[in-house]
Amino acid sequence: MASRTFDFTDRIAKGIPSPPKAGSAGGRVKYDFTTAFPDPDSFPADGLLEALGQALKAEGKDLVYYPHPQGHPVMREFLAEKLARERGMKVSPDQIILTTGSGQAVARYVELLTDPGDTILLEKFSYSGTMGIMRRHGAKLVGMEMDSEGILPEALDETLNDLEAKGVRAKFIYTIPTFQNPTGADMGLQRRQDVLAVSQKHGVPIFEDDCYADLRFAGESLPAIQSLDDEGSVLYCGSFSKIVAPGMRLGFMAAPQPVIESVKAIHLGATPSQFSVLATLYYLRDHLDEHVQELRDIFRAKKDTAVAAVGEHMGSRVECSNPDGGLYLWVKLPEGANTAAVLSKARERQMGYGPGTNFSPGQDAYNYLRLCYGHLTHETIREGIARIARFFEEEGLLK
Amino acid sequence: MASRTFDFTDRIAKGIPSPPKAGSAGGRVKYDFTTAFPDPDSFPADGLLEALGQALKAEGKDLVYYPHPQGHPVMREFLAEKLARERGMKVSPDQIILTTGSGQAVARYVELLTDPGDTILLEKFSYSGTMGIMRRHGAKLVGMEMDSEGILPEALDETLNDLEAKGVRAKFIYTIPTFQNPTGADMGLQRRQDVLAVSQKHGVPIFEDDCYADLRFAGESLPAIQSLDDEGSVLYCGSFSKIVAPGMRLGFMAAPQPVIESVKAIHLGATPSQFSVLATLYYLRDHLDEHVQELRDIFRAKKDTAVAAVGEHMGSRVECSNPDGGLYLWVKLPEGANTAAVLSKARERQMGYGPGTNFSPGQDAYNYLRLCYGHLTHETIREGIARIARFFEEEGLLK
Repeated sequence: MASRTFDFTDRIAKGIPSPPKAGSAGGRVKYDFTTAFPDPDSFPADGLLEALGQALKAEGKDLVYYPHPQGHPVMREFLAEKLARERGMKVSPDQIILTTGSGQAVARYVELLTDPGDTILLEKFSYSGTMGIMRRHGAKLVGMEMDSEGILPEALDETLNDLEAKGVRAKFIYTIPTFQNPTGADMGLQRRQDVLAVSQKHGVPIFEDDCYADLRFAGESLPAIQSLDDEGSVLYCGSFSKIVAPGMRLGFMAAPQPVIESVKAIHLGATPSQFSVLATLYYLRDHLDEHVQELRDIFRAKKDTAVAAVGEHMGSRVECSNPDGGLYLWVKLPEGANTAAVLSKARERQMGYGPGTNFSPGQDAYNYLRLCYGHLTHETIREGIARIARFFEEEGLLK
Repeated sequence: MASRTFDFTDRIAKGIPSPPKAGSAGGRVKYDFTTAFPDPDSFPADGLLEALGQALKAEGKDLVYYPHPQGHPVMREFLAEKLARERGMKVSPDQIILTTGSGQAVARYVELLTDPGDTILLEKFSYSGTMGIMRRHGAKLVGMEMDSEGILPEALDETLNDLEAKGVRAKFIYTIPTFQNPTGADMGLQRRQDVLAVSQKHGVPIFEDDCYADLRFAGESLPAIQSLDDEGSVLYCGSFSKIVAPGMRLGFMAAPQPVIESVKAIHLGATPSQFSVLATLYYLRDHLDEHVQELRDIFRAKKDTAVAAVGEHMGSRVECSNPDGGLYLWVKLPEGANTAAVLSKARERQMGYGPGTNFSPGQDAYNYLRLCYGHLTHETIREGIARIARFFEEEGLLK
């Protein structure tokens, strides 16, 4: 079709990552524990459609206008109330910006704060998507030691002292305190207070990613770190992906007013779909509690199935998380195992998982894997984990 | 509430623009010609809701999975066929990425291609939103002389020669060939071929923003510049904002495969709402032609009303465009007038318009204004233009 082919290679801006290699991700496989999808059978299609119908009757014509730059005002009021009630937070609707999922919220905060070479602190294991965005902005990622309650305050303090001694000021601390991705760590109240106190002592802001907080199926609900902060040093984001659906592409940022004003300057025209906003708002206004309760029951049961299957097929050869919420297990294989090295072979055999290297700042957590169970049936969870265990045995990862 | 207030000022990354001043934009006013909104009464709420209902029955459960990174495959097939039929383009669905409006498409291309200090060529008057994104990436904007058919090929050639003589390689040429925003210029076929030929002679790619192409209400439909290109040097974007609604936040990019692969590396998780995609796809599959025909009739009539009102109230003291499509008029007042300087006073009196300075690369088109008529009633158009004319007379802009 083209007589010559224009070469864009030397037109691409600096810092744009190379395209992913063809076939590196691939489609879904039969036993696919790769991604933290929610449950397809509890997607409330009828309820959302009915809610959207009501909304369009009430305010449908407004769709021809560009949405408010921070997103639908009534949705922001709804969110401010939800955050106050469930997360102990005091934010006004003016301090909220709606985004197309929490991924966009993360991207905005990182873009806003990160110059190339900046140092960002985060949990020793963290979410691959966020780290990809940070790397794209040229950040240096420094992982903190953690336990089942997340970042160790003393490790944070020590790292910040070391950096300061070298003349380096960390730009911010990224943490997922509730059902941390991938480890499932759940930060207790004292730990939240301690981590915040260390961050404030060093004058380093916290970016709190709270997108799994709705999905608690055991243990006591804990307030957001943001709610404990009296200095306005915590940036916050959340999501509707897990309680409605990722396909809605709906999340949000909540931050001190000056930060919100700066975000607005780079967020022009990037507001989410009003169809998603209206359907979600009108639906959740009437059904939030019952729907989330249904999801919690579903995910608790699936988690139990997944933990039992790991116990049955991998047993004491592994360490496995047993989280009180979220959509994934974090499994540590014996030293020397390399889950990334055998992933493409696993995928050929219809098994998928998140290799540990995706979740570590140094890309070196070779003997770990993340197993997402939220979207799979109990049968597929049992059968899939059995197959993965057998596969790891054959490949010499589980001895 | 806060005992101290954390200061984020020195945490903000370089290149982030200052927050807009409070109240600089404000809400909508009664006679508001500021923004290119479509017509509220022709927003097909019922049709979209019915279409969404069908779609959710057929594929609703897929919403719990993250959408395909390039967007819904069947929507991309639909678009590839639409672009072939209406714009003469040969692009495969794999060469399309869905975006949250054409604003996001513009942002992606600019981010992909622009290093600070790069030179971008564009029409002498151009779209404010795009220029804002370009400036944010540190680009130097160079406006080309234009007439009612858009960029003059000889001006383009001369500018490129001048730049080359100075050792400057322009990064790309940004053009809106069809119903150019703000001028309404409509590039004829010969002009499209000539502009493309000059760009190819100099080895500079074209970014063709075609988001008004559907809204032709007079004259012959002309193929996209992309369709005339045999080198793969044209990047293309379009939108559903004008034929469905901006609130859907739905647009797209179409580009040569290597460019698409690079965009994917920076577009992770940024796909539009599947509610918007499904409703739009299922609706337009059945109703595209009839709905667009209805819109054309509506906008033709409103444009005639607006042109007549400018003629009646501003007469020969101004030059006014009379476009064959789009949603706006471009009006030149006598030399010495400054439409930006009196805008806040106009807004206090419930009149809004786009000052010329917003639409010129040098921010110096003082005696111009853009009038968007798409969302207003005939009565508001007539009354509003009469009021604006009177106001300009009082302020000494129209003598």
